Amino acid sequence: MRAIVFEDGALRIEESYPEPVAGNGEALIRVLLAGICATDLEIVKGYMGFTGVPGHEFVGVVEKCADAEWLGKRVVGSINLACGKCQTCLGSGPEHCRERSVLGIFHQDGAFAEYLTLPVVNLHAVPEGVADDQAVFTEPLAAALRIGDQVAIQSFHRIAVVGSGRLGVLIAQVLSRLSDDLTMFGRSKDSLIIAERIGLPTGLAQDADDNGFDIVVEATGNPEGFMQSLRMVKPLGILVLKSTFAQKATLDLTKIVVGEITVIGSRCGPFAPALKLLAADQIHVRALIEAEYSLANGLRAFEHAAEPGVKKILIRP
Amino acid sequence: MRAIVFEDGALRIEESYPEPVAGNGEALIRVLLAGICATDLEIVKGYMGFTGVPGHEFVGVVEKCADAEWLGKRVVGSINLACGKCQTCLGSGPEHCRERSVLGIFHQDGAFAEYLTLPVVNLHAVPEGVADDQAVFTEPLAAALRIGDQVAIQSFHRIAVVGSGRLGVLIAQVLSRLSDDLTMFGRSKDSLIIAERIGLPTGLAQDADDNGFDIVVEATGNPEGFMQSLRMVKPLGILVLKSTFAQKATLDLTKIVVGEITVIGSRCGPFAPALKLLAADQIHVRALIEAEYSLANGLRAFEHAAEPGVKKILIRP
Repeated sequence: MRAIVFEDGALRIEESYPEPVAGNGEALIRVLLAGICATDLEIVKGYMGFTGVPGHEFVGVVEKCADAEWLGKRVVGSINLACGKCQTCLGSGPEHCRERSVLGIFHQDGAFAEYLTLPVVNLHAVPEGVADDQAVFTEPLAAALRIGDQVAIQSFHRIAVVGSGRLGVLIAQVLSRLSDDLTMFGRSKDSLIIAERIGLPTGLAQDADDNGFDIVVEATGNPEGFMQSLRMVKPLGILVLKSTFAQKATLDLTKIVVGEITVIGSRCGPFAPALKLLAADQIHVRALIEAEYSLANGLRAFEHAAEPGVKKILIRP
Repeated sequence: MRAIVFEDGALRIEESYPEPVAGNGEALIRVLLAGICATDLEIVKGYMGFTGVPGHEFVGVVEKCADAEWLGKRVVGSINLACGKCQTCLGSGPEHCRERSVLGIFHQDGAFAEYLTLPVVNLHAVPEGVADDQAVFTEPLAAALRIGDQVAIQSFHRIAVVGSGRLGVLIAQVLSRLSDDLTMFGRSKDSLIIAERIGLPTGLAQDADDNGFDIVVEATGNPEGFMQSLRMVKPLGILVLKSTFAQKATLDLTKIVVGEITVIGSRCGPFAPALKLLAADQIHVRALIEAEYSLANGLRAFEHAAEPGVKKILIRP
């Protein structure tokens, strides 16, 4: 099959990459549409030492599966493939299983290919009214929803989302449903155009008040954004880290101690409520699409996605 | 009066420093004994841009006070001088008031002098059975107790305290009362001698398990200790930062996001329960004393305190 492959530090298009085989309890899924995420851009710089087919945001159709119920169904899939038996899996769930592989990120080929496999337990059927170019946002929307699982957000909380990229705009939309006082902060007026178009209150990060927000969500993925976010959070406030910066950075953590800040790392979230929100058309996702490429043009798609200020790049096999 | 003064980047003994005057609602306190803390060592390197008399760990006697109840009483005092009127003061308390000064740390002369002043609301009477060389540990013991206010510690939680210095040993004693599975980690066998003497389970930080602990308390105050602590905490676990490192450091925060770690900054704590523990002789503090100096020998005291592996240095005016 055709696939984008990352190997020996380089990305290439492979025309006859071996088609994956669905194992016990797994489904073979034909990919309909996949999205390039910031993590994919980190992976091609060496993050996680990944080798193989990247890609973890997708919508597809089940073509082979022992459980006939799934055959022909349009699905999205959660990305952590866990043992299902350890204390962690039985306790908090599959996201932190020590034995896990992660679709397109760690020891499991991903979505930038004609086919992928996933365990059936990872699958979620896509409701009929949700189009492919909406369903492909399920994974990042679930990640945005994760914040509400971790922090008890009240309507009076003053919230700042720092970083007006694709994930930031999803987070701001999700948290606007919980708080009456949310502002989306970007580096420049230009970076805030989409946020403004969908009606979010916006501001420039450098102009934001010191110690002005109960909850700050860091979604820039760079050290400057982290320090900006830490500056903005109130003493005793909460700083949610939603983006990894995959390299070491020079940071000053003094305020965390002196201001008794709580910093919460936040990663994968629940797919079911994300699909519900998409089905109810409650979240603007199409405004986040920049362009769509064929799989054959996957390298150009990656180049485009790496340009600053670019919205979501989609790949259609 | 005699005082240790930090000014123009240097520490000196001043023989005729102006005696402080108790304002409205304040008490004039004759210092009986004061302790040098890691924060004092940071201050003489420039932390907080402080100028004046450092020192915030003390026990003293009230010599002047409008409220006659306090006269002649032996007291310790909490270190944040707050406005008492703002939303923060009325809400969470004085520790995070934006207008606050901090005894011997920020805009308020401290305890390395013959006298200091503090608002009466900051004072706590020392029970009779608590000797001066125990009472002088009230402030750091309160800081150790703060962790229990912030984290709901269960007896089955696996806890690591990283950093076997003065504060670390107090923290380990306090948290051992809550958890049945606590280990104190140091850099070397030598650094663990006191911890072992008072019966704490110990280990070498470099040998500690990756992802092995539900709660890790960072009490080294250096970036290596921070990265060590982050390495040791379980996914979905809690990392408590108890020491500031007053300079920027090169850090990798990836695990906070991927492991969904909660990092909690922790600073000042409650004096009343600290005094209760000291009165009940429940915490070993005398084992933490290295040496006592007169105020006139204060510069030698600071030099001694700055040597690696040194326990608490006390100063008696």
